Amino acid sequence: MKTQQAKNKWIAKLHEVIYGTHTPAGRLFDIILLVIIVYSVIIVMLESVPWIDQHYHKFLNYSEWVVTILFSIEYILRIISIRQPRKYIFSFFGIVDFLSTIPKYLSLFLIGSQYLTAFRILRLLRVFRILKLVRFVGESNNLIRALNASKTKIFVFVFFIAVISILLGTVMYIVEGPDNGFNSIPHSVYWTVVTLTTVGYGDISPQTPLGQFIATIVMIIGYGIIAVPTGIVSAEYASGMNTAKKMDAGRACTECGSEILRADAHYCRQCGNKLREEE
Amino acid sequence: MKTQQAKNKWIAKLHEVIYGTHTPAGRLFDIILLVIIVYSVIIVMLESVPWIDQHYHKFLNYSEWVVTILFSIEYILRIISIRQPRKYIFSFFGIVDFLSTIPKYLSLFLIGSQYLTAFRILRLLRVFRILKLVRFVGESNNLIRALNASKTKIFVFVFFIAVISILLGTVMYIVEGPDNGFNSIPHSVYWTVVTLTTVGYGDISPQTPLGQFIATIVMIIGYGIIAVPTGIVSAEYASGMNTAKKMDAGRACTECGSEILRADAHYCRQCGNKLREEE
Amino acid sequence: MKTQQAKNKWIAKLHEVIYGTHTPAGRLFDIILLVIIVYSVIIVMLESVPWIDQHYHKFLNYSEWVVTILFSIEYILRIISIRQPRKYIFSFFGIVDFLSTIPKYLSLFLIGSQYLTAFRILRLLRVFRILKLVRFVGESNNLIRALNASKTKIFVFVFFIAVISILLGTVMYIVEGPDNGFNSIPHSVYWTVVTLTTVGYGDISPQTPLGQFIATIVMIIGYGIIAVPTGIVSAEYASGMNTAKKMDAGRACTECGSEILRADAHYCRQCGNKLREEE
Amino acid sequence: MKTQQAKNKWIAKLHEVIYGTHTPAGRLFDIILLVIIVYSVIIVMLESVPWIDQHYHKFLNYSEWVVTILFSIEYILRIISIRQPRKYIFSFFGIVDFLSTIPKYLSLFLIGSQYLTAFRILRLLRVFRILKLVRFVGESNNLIRALNASKTKIFVFVFFIAVISILLGTVMYIVEGPDNGFNSIPHSVYWTVVTLTTVGYGDISPQTPLGQFIATIVMIIGYGIIAVPTGIVSAEYASGMNTAKKMDAGRACTECGSEILRADAHYCRQCGNKLREEE
Repeated sequence: MKTQQAKNKWIAKLHEVIYGTHTPAGRLFDIILLVIIVYSVIIVMLESVPWIDQHYHKFLNYSEWVVTILFSIEYILRIISIRQPRKYIFSFFGIVDFLSTIPKYLSLFLIGSQYLTAFRILRLLRVFRILKLVRFVGESNNLIRALNASKTKIFVFVFFIAVISILLGTVMYIVEGPDNGFNSIPHSVYWTVVTLTTVGYGDISPQTPLGQFIATIVMIIGYGIIAVPTGIVSAEYASGMNTAKKMDAGRACTECGSEILRADAHYCRQCGNKLREEE
Repeated sequence: MKTQQAKNKWIAKLHEVIYGTHTPAGRLFDIILLVIIVYSVIIVMLESVPWIDQHYHKFLNYSEWVVTILFSIEYILRIISIRQPRKYIFSFFGIVDFLSTIPKYLSLFLIGSQYLTAFRILRLLRVFRILKLVRFVGESNNLIRALNASKTKIFVFVFFIAVISILLGTVMYIVEGPDNGFNSIPHSVYWTVVTLTTVGYGDISPQTPLGQFIATIVMIIGYGIIAVPTGIVSAEYASGMNTAKKMDAGRACTECGSEILRADAHYCRQCGNKLREEE
Repeated sequence: MKTQQAKNKWIAKLHEVIYGTHTPAGRLFDIILLVIIVYSVIIVMLESVPWIDQHYHKFLNYSEWVVTILFSIEYILRIISIRQPRKYIFSFFGIVDFLSTIPKYLSLFLIGSQYLTAFRILRLLRVFRILKLVRFVGESNNLIRALNASKTKIFVFVFFIAVISILLGTVMYIVEGPDNGFNSIPHSVYWTVVTLTTVGYGDISPQTPLGQFIATIVMIIGYGIIAVPTGIVSAEYASGMNTAKKMDAGRACTECGSEILRADAHYCRQCGNKLREEE
Repeated sequence: MKTQQAKNKWIAKLHEVIYGTHTPAGRLFDIILLVIIVYSVIIVMLESVPWIDQHYHKFLNYSEWVVTILFSIEYILRIISIRQPRKYIFSFFGIVDFLSTIPKYLSLFLIGSQYLTAFRILRLLRVFRILKLVRFVGESNNLIRALNASKTKIFVFVFFIAVISILLGTVMYIVEGPDNGFNSIPHSVYWTVVTLTTVGYGDISPQTPLGQFIATIVMIIGYGIIAVPTGIVSAEYASGMNTAKKMDAGRACTECGSEILRADAHYCRQCGNKLREEE
């Protein structure tokens, strides 16, 4: 009985360290994890450089094994310390964690499986989760809110660009043709996107005067519509900032943003939202 | 008499399904149409890829015929079910629908007419019409309003870019000359637009020090004026959003945007606009 | 005496037609002038295309002469009809008008002077002057106001880009060196501007890993600071729009923008500005 | 005793001339310094152009020596005239000043040390310090304030771009591989940044259809997120401008920005901030 209790207590503490960020130990764990993730990503990147791989193959291989074993231990501890292991295992980060650990073991039996190590890079996304909890909460939240608010608008916009790209790409395919590098409609659409987004590689570029004239129009369209997503995000962000400011100045309802006139109010007079006491 | 009435009723129902979007049947028709349009566009795109066309020519050809026949039926039904067929036939979408159907039939008699199939891609524009009616009305409307409000300004701006491009293109033609790839003034103007819009293919690039110096200035100008259309759309969009928000908060007149103070008001106290009852 | 008076009257009318835009005749004159300017610019552009010049040399040459003679007559009439001819002759447009007329005459005596014909393109700038007076006054004015208000800020910004370009260009010259296409510091600075402004020709691009790493930083800097001029113009433009809107709503002082409360006010109660009567 | 006092007075005056900008002499000193810095930067740039260095080597070398000696004198005077020479010597500008002077002397003993002369370009940064004090204070301050306010946000954003670049770069390395120019993951990440920022050199570009499809998505992402930093700076800048405007209009508290209603107020009625008397 007591052993069980002690075990439970031990697991609760482990949970706090691994998943929590409020205790010094939890924070330390996150920072160490962060360092190892960044280190492992650098290893994967360096391994892909032929010159470095030739000279430091042994060191990189050992580093890989050390990181893999550390990640394996972390993975097992995460499963042990959580109440519903399934929920973790099939969550986004659970799958990523698994995929970051397994390739190195597979490479003992299967050749070519080391490419899967690249999945480890997805662990970098955990950085946001960790950092978010430490410092940038306020910052990111406003950003995320603005992006969320303009999500549908940006989707409509991207959709519009897709349609316009297919239309203009087809026109360019007919005008320039395979002789000038526009081999097929998908290839022309690729060129149109390259031009509309003002990237402009120059691997394909119009050769006929008519093609160049149409390209000019495509560019000016692209230049003109660059304004649209910018305008949307600017406006949404500014609007979010104003709301935040209002809340800083007098007290304001966190639900509807209307001003709280009386200091002793407990409910918003506009929307009936229960007000949090000021700290 | 009764047959006529039954026929009329049948046509009215057909009209509702084909042109309407409020009944489940009408919505289903639009979604199926959308799927077929997207499918036909993919077919056209894949047909233009030499490698795919060689291997799957038969399948693509059959798909073409199926889509063409479906489009033909749709076209005929559209003409039957509308009161003024002429209005539809000579409308933008009427012409597009006709041009998407006819090329395949022509290809039996005329060689080379399959290029016209590309017109089918214009049917993609119908996507906006369909989607607009289904979900994104609010979203698009605000976007369209902002773009409409800044239409003249963006026109002036594009005009300004055109004039500046001709001026700078001529200067570059004189400075660099045909030996460095600036073959003619139109070609130089093309280069100027490529540079001003920050696309930068690199198919032509200045070779002389003086040309590179002028190019530097052109780029900074382009970088500087990218701000202008963005600023315009941002401001217009933000202004539109504020008006929309005002209407969300208290009740506001839909005409002049001034606040409606009394809940029992039937006319705007500022502009006399008849107010809609709140839902 | 009477002849003098008649002549004066005739000159006054000529002045009205040439310089004015309020009478139908003045507007017609401006439109015809605009058409001829655009036509002459197209001629100059086409002349520079070798293929077109070979086939239509005669036609282009005659067109040139016709345009030159029309411009000459216009130039003389402008001098006659104005009170202070000197003011016009030495004004910006006076010099442009003179330089657009003279090269064709010079080409009879001097070989190579036809390049000066390119000055004619500067006449296109007159387009703005004419259009401004006809339709886009309101539109352009707000744009010009916004650009004017952010003039110094944009200057500081451009200056900042110049300094950063020289610094980064020098670093890249030391890192990459002449072997990788960075022939000299001015050349490297050119590359830096090409990269910072996101133009990216690709005529020079970093080859060493370190150079590519620095290039990456340069790009992200460029991407980050693209926000600055956009932000400035957006804010200025929005601020201008708000002022304009305020004036549309109640009556507002044109000087300080404060609202005019009493309809019978003749002076602004805030700044003492004499108010214009409402139309 | 008197000599000491005279010396002190002389040093105080020297300090005022060199470090101060309020006296005419101080301003003159700064302007002359600015001219010499710009001149020395031009010399360094021209020296790196092989053609110019060959023809004008002697002149450039003499100029170098003159500038070096002037800078040496300035450096010594700066040390003499300041109370705590150490603070200056180990400050950013102290080190820059030292590094701009020493290379020319070193070049007498060591070959190849002339590359260090490039450090002189860092002195250009002094331009901002000087100009800031002379004219653009107001302008820059608002700009700097806006950039400062959005610092963390832009950092989060840059961090986000870095993570996304590594992820997408790895995907492209696996898809395209070394055969199509994506030699290693760092190289692919470089390509991703080039594409995301819409620079698009074209030195590496996707060759496989799948790679081009992914590239298309990368470009649209890049195009979409260009909106984010712009939106942030726009909003911050506009917010700063509004505050500034409020202060211009009625009198406003410099702490909380609330309006001062009574002209004879000495403390802000909102936050109790001691108000500065109006000038």
